[in-house]
Amino acid sequence: MSVKEEYTPRPDEELDDMAAVDFESQHPADAAETIEGLDIADQVKFIKQLPIKDAAESIAEMDDLDQKALISSLNRGLAARIVEEMAPDDATDLLDGLSDDLQKALLSRVAAEDRAELKTLLTFDPDTAGGVMNTEVVILDQDLNADEAVAKIREEVEDKEIPYYAYLVDKKDRLVGVLSLRDLLLAKRGSHLRDLVKTQNLISVGYNVDKEEVAHLIAHYNFLALPVVDFGNRLLGVVTVDDVIDIIHEEASEDMQAMVGAGADETTDSPWLYSLRMRLPWLILNVIFSAVSAWVVHLFEGNIAQMAVLAVLMPVVANQAGNTGQQALAVMIRQLAMERFDRKRAWIAVLRELRIGFVNGMIISTLVFCAVLLVTHKVLLASVMGAALWVDMLLGALAGGSIPLLLKELGRDPAQASSIFLTTITDSMGFLVLLGLAGLVLLH
Amino acid sequence: MSVKEEYTPRPDEELDDMAAVDFESQHPADAAETIEGLDIADQVKFIKQLPIKDAAESIAEMDDLDQKALISSLNRGLAARIVEEMAPDDATDLLDGLSDDLQKALLSRVAAEDRAELKTLLTFDPDTAGGVMNTEVVILDQDLNADEAVAKIREEVEDKEIPYYAYLVDKKDRLVGVLSLRDLLLAKRGSHLRDLVKTQNLISVGYNVDKEEVAHLIAHYNFLALPVVDFGNRLLGVVTVDDVIDIIHEEASEDMQAMVGAGADETTDSPWLYSLRMRLPWLILNVIFSAVSAWVVHLFEGNIAQMAVLAVLMPVVANQAGNTGQQALAVMIRQLAMERFDRKRAWIAVLRELRIGFVNGMIISTLVFCAVLLVTHKVLLASVMGAALWVDMLLGALAGGSIPLLLKELGRDPAQASSIFLTTITDSMGFLVLLGLAGLVLLH
Repeated sequence: MSVKEEYTPRPDEELDDMAAVDFESQHPADAAETIEGLDIADQVKFIKQLPIKDAAESIAEMDDLDQKALISSLNRGLAARIVEEMAPDDATDLLDGLSDDLQKALLSRVAAEDRAELKTLLTFDPDTAGGVMNTEVVILDQDLNADEAVAKIREEVEDKEIPYYAYLVDKKDRLVGVLSLRDLLLAKRGSHLRDLVKTQNLISVGYNVDKEEVAHLIAHYNFLALPVVDFGNRLLGVVTVDDVIDIIHEEASEDMQAMVGAGADETTDSPWLYSLRMRLPWLILNVIFSAVSAWVVHLFEGNIAQMAVLAVLMPVVANQAGNTGQQALAVMIRQLAMERFDRKRAWIAVLRELRIGFVNGMIISTLVFCAVLLVTHKVLLASVMGAALWVDMLLGALAGGSIPLLLKELGRDPAQASSIFLTTITDSMGFLVLLGLAGLVLLH
Repeated sequence: MSVKEEYTPRPDEELDDMAAVDFESQHPADAAETIEGLDIADQVKFIKQLPIKDAAESIAEMDDLDQKALISSLNRGLAARIVEEMAPDDATDLLDGLSDDLQKALLSRVAAEDRAELKTLLTFDPDTAGGVMNTEVVILDQDLNADEAVAKIREEVEDKEIPYYAYLVDKKDRLVGVLSLRDLLLAKRGSHLRDLVKTQNLISVGYNVDKEEVAHLIAHYNFLALPVVDFGNRLLGVVTVDDVIDIIHEEASEDMQAMVGAGADETTDSPWLYSLRMRLPWLILNVIFSAVSAWVVHLFEGNIAQMAVLAVLMPVVANQAGNTGQQALAVMIRQLAMERFDRKRAWIAVLRELRIGFVNGMIISTLVFCAVLLVTHKVLLASVMGAALWVDMLLGALAGGSIPLLLKELGRDPAQASSIFLTTITDSMGFLVLLGLAGLVLLH
């Protein structure tokens, strides 16, 4: 983005004591935390007295919600200059979170060239390579030699984020190679860039590739950045490793929270009404599913009236099989998150879960058989309980292993509400087997 | 590590068809996947015909278990040369996973200087900064000027991993500054390194800092690497961002799997007996805890015998409160994983969970009240059920929010078995309230 004149604080904007933070010595990420700790009026005061560059860098590091609140509270001229000063990917993230009116108002105040770029970036889906890429790229003509390239980088580097790599394009702007600063440092004087990348196996992604896939690629290859291209292989930007860390963090939270039906993007800082709204539909689904388990128990109400001890054992079966299934679930979901999907290996992993469930089920069922026998002195009751528990734990392992795969095969998020589906199966089937077996063996 | 002479394949080691992989064009990460797909005899053949450098790079990218199996199957001379050729952090990881005998045998065949370094690295706890750091660092004297520095880097860079940064030390090897390649490219000719880092706020970590804390710092500051120092502030090595991505991936899996009592480091590739052993203790704990819930139900067996419909409602209460609690649990655990612990903010987050649980509990309880009334036409029963559900969902929210914090305050992993603790509370308290209330209101 173009570098604008420094913003000089006016005397009446001087800092109160509360905000007398030693900003000079702070990293923007720390400054962001400091700012988040202030109330909004103090945040505005604090930002107003900072040089625009520092303000932009600090705000870029703030949490989405705090960032949005602060920008909305600043006067629009200042807000627009801060947006202008940010790296384009950070600016796009910020604008994406604002109301349409405010977004338009800020864009209209941004310098024309920056505005055009931001508008383009805003058209990309935020969950794709295009949505997270940075457009500040060092682009070199492949006909340059190494020294000319270093000189060109020296010229450009002040304006751009740390260039891990420089990208080589041909006359039609098509991406033909990538050079790390290390390659350039090592290159023999006078050698042509074209020759330096001759045998290179270039890896790039289309702008519409899912950002999690981009993160996987960067993690897989230990890259610092990955170039993003359009359908004509023209270079659009790069996704850098620092963005990938955020994506991986988000992805992990999404998995864990989606599994139990919390909002994928919830944090403890989300407005509580947002969390409420995200969780309620899954709780309602869960209560509807619970009705299935309740209905199963209802079928056997007569048996329970005759043998109330069955109601004592019911929760043990349900809880234990649910836990067994969740262990399988967690391992499968993480596997799907971390590796490229391989159908055959995935189903082999389900067999592995079944085997673990079979043996753990046998051990736990034996323990429970002994415990029930010890307490009740009823061999048949203990046997029914042990058998029901074993069957249900096996079912739990099967369900926990296969639910994420089934969701994946259906084109859904493998984690979403998987724990809810699982416990519906382990609860209802556990009750069916326990109460059904008891009816057959104990009560006739 | 010292660069050794190239390993030239002997004719009798030529590749079979099966392994005729176009290795030249493959990234080591892809080659590693190819190798993992072969059976062990073919893996050995394949590795034998590769140049040592390619073999070392590919093996470094393999999964821990595959890597260990392959190295154990190679003859020791070749294995030792591969270890020698690896980056020291990768070599240490590999040696850490081997049997003591094999580790000693390989170390004894490694060149003396490399051996000393590897032995030092092996003394660090693998879960600390020292355990994951790389010792291939470009170290510059602070009295050099920028051009001398670039010349020195050019000299050294061939031997070392991509140097994102060069580190400045004083006469006593104490870390005094860090320079990115970008800084050096931008530096005015002849300027002294000492002046370039004069006002720098240098961030480093001690070798005994937990690796997850290191990952947090790198993610927080968007660094590419973080220097690791000893107690005398002498530079020992660096942790790089590619290692951090692995740490974050592991951490996310650990959280999710530990929450439900699966092994923190389990994957679908772990030997099934390992998974069995990791999960069984938690299943046993769970079954012991289940006995508490069962005992609560047992206290009210008389009530259930009189009113078997209570057994129909029990699983609905338990499941619903358990799910509510898990939603809170997942959000809290992720929060603790992603941000530095802030006691006050954490407990405020528990209050937030309580509020969400209160309102979601009210809504779900009202729905369930209506459903029970509709089905049974019993106002009192529906009321008892609604009240018990509301109370238990509130308890679930409280427990889900606070269990990770309590574990953290006790110095434990906030995720470990938290779901098991949670469902013990929601099951037993849910049954207590439902059956107790029913006893008071319906049966007297």
